[in-house]
Amino acid sequence: MDLVAQCAVASLLVSHAVRADAEFVAVLLGPPRPPRIVRFVGAEVRGLNPDERSTASLLRKALAEEGLAERSVHAGVYGRGGGLRDALATIQPPIFLMDEGGEDLRGSRLGSDVTFVLSDHKDFTAEERALLAAVTTAKLSVGPRALQADQVIAVVHNELDRRA
Amino acid sequence: MDLVAQCAVASLLVSHAVRADAEFVAVLLGPPRPPRIVRFVGAEVRGLNPDERSTASLLRKALAEEGLAERSVHAGVYGRGGGLRDALATIQPPIFLMDEGGEDLRGSRLGSDVTFVLSDHKDFTAEERALLAAVTTAKLSVGPRALQADQVIAVVHNELDRRA
Repeated sequence: MDLVAQCAVASLLVSHAVRADAEFVAVLLGPPRPPRIVRFVGAEVRGLNPDERSTASLLRKALAEEGLAERSVHAGVYGRGGGLRDALATIQPPIFLMDEGGEDLRGSRLGSDVTFVLSDHKDFTAEERALLAAVTTAKLSVGPRALQADQVIAVVHNELDRRA
Repeated sequence: MDLVAQCAVASLLVSHAVRADAEFVAVLLGPPRPPRIVRFVGAEVRGLNPDERSTASLLRKALAEEGLAERSVHAGVYGRGGGLRDALATIQPPIFLMDEGGEDLRGSRLGSDVTFVLSDHKDFTAEERALLAAVTTAKLSVGPRALQADQVIAVVHNELDRRA
């Protein structure tokens, strides 16, 4: 949960401010609980802090719910039932898969409303890779070293900030 | 302490590995305790994990000591007495100050053995700025948005990785 919290913070917070144009979506597969999708909306979120602990507690709150329909569990934080397929079904292209073997982010054409998909410290399964291959525009890499997911997010945001 | 722990992790960890060529130095000014300098050495550190909690506990261990001389409190983690002036005195140039108004990191000449100085969420005091002005080579910025310190570190490392 710490890693997911770090990624939420990297996606949504900058120094003393929230990225109002960003959303963070986490697909949490369990077990023991069935898969759930947690969504943080930058334009709405309140009380998001840079520390892992408080963000992890928002995630746990969304995971503690059981309904399939999306429900707000905190200002700007939503939870619903579903796995990777369900999460991808609601996202418009372009969708980029962050992958060490991908083309360099810096030279890539991105567009302005864009989604990046990252795995946690474990690689995607074959089934997940097939799902992703069907909807992603390209694989992108942030550079010559494999970074932690939250570090990748910081580098991707920096590239987008520079282009904005 | 969470913020310092995040910066230590951003400085020293990548995906499933430690940056053996990096060091992280934190100057912790108190109060209530007198200023102390904590140093993490990438080539020596053991048991450093990506979560804030365990890294913060290493920092607290170094802060709990009282001697002025540098002492190891854990494999690759050292504590000693001293403030910003003492920390800077042991560092060879080039030293770059990360600052929103600095020149763009991407276009900068860096060198291979290089130090970057960052403040926490509070700006440096006038006295600290004077100390830094005397020893720093230039001010550098990571881009158009002011980021959290750990995000700045991730972006700086990515630039260095690309040049290595």
